[in-house]
Amino acid sequence: MGLGMARSLLRAGLPVWGYDIREDVRQAFSAEGGQPVSGLSDSAALSDLLFIVVVNAAQTEQMLWFGEQGIAARLRPGSVVIACATISAAAARRISGRLAEHQVLMLDAPISGGAVRAEAGELTIMASGPQAAFERAQTALAAVAAKVYRLGEEAGQGSQIKLVNQLLAGVHIAAAAEAMAYGIRQGCDPEALYEVISHSAGNSWMFENRVPHLLAGDYRPRSAVDIFVKDLGLVLDSAQEAVFPLPLTASAHQMFKQASASGLGREDDIAVVKIFPGINLPAAANEEI
Amino acid sequence: MGLGMARSLLRAGLPVWGYDIREDVRQAFSAEGGQPVSGLSDSAALSDLLFIVVVNAAQTEQMLWFGEQGIAARLRPGSVVIACATISAAAARRISGRLAEHQVLMLDAPISGGAVRAEAGELTIMASGPQAAFERAQTALAAVAAKVYRLGEEAGQGSQIKLVNQLLAGVHIAAAAEAMAYGIRQGCDPEALYEVISHSAGNSWMFENRVPHLLAGDYRPRSAVDIFVKDLGLVLDSAQEAVFPLPLTASAHQMFKQASASGLGREDDIAVVKIFPGINLPAAANEEI
Repeated sequence: MGLGMARSLLRAGLPVWGYDIREDVRQAFSAEGGQPVSGLSDSAALSDLLFIVVVNAAQTEQMLWFGEQGIAARLRPGSVVIACATISAAAARRISGRLAEHQVLMLDAPISGGAVRAEAGELTIMASGPQAAFERAQTALAAVAAKVYRLGEEAGQGSQIKLVNQLLAGVHIAAAAEAMAYGIRQGCDPEALYEVISHSAGNSWMFENRVPHLLAGDYRPRSAVDIFVKDLGLVLDSAQEAVFPLPLTASAHQMFKQASASGLGREDDIAVVKIFPGINLPAAANEEI
Repeated sequence: MGLGMARSLLRAGLPVWGYDIREDVRQAFSAEGGQPVSGLSDSAALSDLLFIVVVNAAQTEQMLWFGEQGIAARLRPGSVVIACATISAAAARRISGRLAEHQVLMLDAPISGGAVRAEAGELTIMASGPQAAFERAQTALAAVAAKVYRLGEEAGQGSQIKLVNQLLAGVHIAAAAEAMAYGIRQGCDPEALYEVISHSAGNSWMFENRVPHLLAGDYRPRSAVDIFVKDLGLVLDSAQEAVFPLPLTASAHQMFKQASASGLGREDDIAVVKIFPGINLPAAANEEI
């Protein structure tokens, strides 16, 4: 998603420095007019805005503070960090607080939409942070997002709404898997199930988006099982602090963990359907998949 | 929903006899050009097509076979019963088999869409049954439905897909309640949650349709908690026969039962949110609601 966002920024005519741990991604970025850097701190000194597009809070903090490569100390006062990973509200507040010590502003700005929408500059961003940070980031946010929700002035407000979204996204993927497994077990035609339900009250964004992978027998990861092991874990951790019951989230989390422990962690998230025993799932048309 | 369907049939210019246990519904139907009957068997002798729009298999069977009012024996050979309740596939096969003894055809034809779409003639019908039954019912089905799925020749195929749809509908309502309760507990603005999630990957048909009731504090039943106590029970019973695990369905069923046992059974199904403790749900703007 980071490469797609960088491409959207380039298309908007903005100068972009970029870093990815993968050499091939840095080369692709360079070939399209981006300015790859070999270390994080090089770009930090040059940028007014820094998008951090990684998988969790630990990676976000490692980028900012780990050793010689840590870039927080190189950021100029008044620059803006746009933190895009799905993290807990508490982590968003902690990171924002540490950046403030360097007079650096932060947008707590988790993203939604996947790699395809990142390429198209059509992400949804659920953002909170100071007015000044929104103003400085406005052009860049418009380049990467179709919709930017401004959810308040405080770090944590963006991440908290993203977590509620992830709760539903995870439960809906697991429910799509459970429903398809049950229907197949009861003798329904999988294609008919998809056709009818995607036009009925049982539909969800995830059902409509993920079940075609199942029907094609194609479990190459667009988003992986392990992402929901992580994200539903974040939701449950935050609810645990509040001693708040989340029965469906807990069930769905167990299902993703069962899938991951069965070796499916890096498959597409709808591979959670493979935990259901004794059914014949549609096979891939092509064994190379 | 039966009255709305009867109105749609009248609008299509078809002669319609109708029965409802509620006197006021019979009067409304009569005032609009329908021909109310005081007992079920009167209409049976007159009709080529009989829509049965009741809540479950027991009511369907009671209408057809109970005592002097039982209408199965009065139906003419070659007439078609259109069974619209949400029932198990096994019940659909059983009822169809008994009707065949009278040379009466059956469409296993559960409906989806709610009262508003029934009035508009825009239901979705998930139907299976013999070709001849579809042909004889064609004009009437077109009058009440925007979409008729033909799911096979056998009774049970329609009902089975409806049950898969109900599995998802029930889980998604319970998930919408859980997500809104969690978000409110974590300090999110409920209106912002709805706005963001209904435009994001966490959306579902049910989230989009039911959460506005919660935001308005309006729990008047469009569809009631007890409908999902029943429908998820049907799903779980059928899975129990096959010893097939349905973890999310089982969790959601417990949530609806907890709500029903708390006295919420006849409230709108999103009232399942009231099982979550220690949160302030939006209040109704008007205490008369």
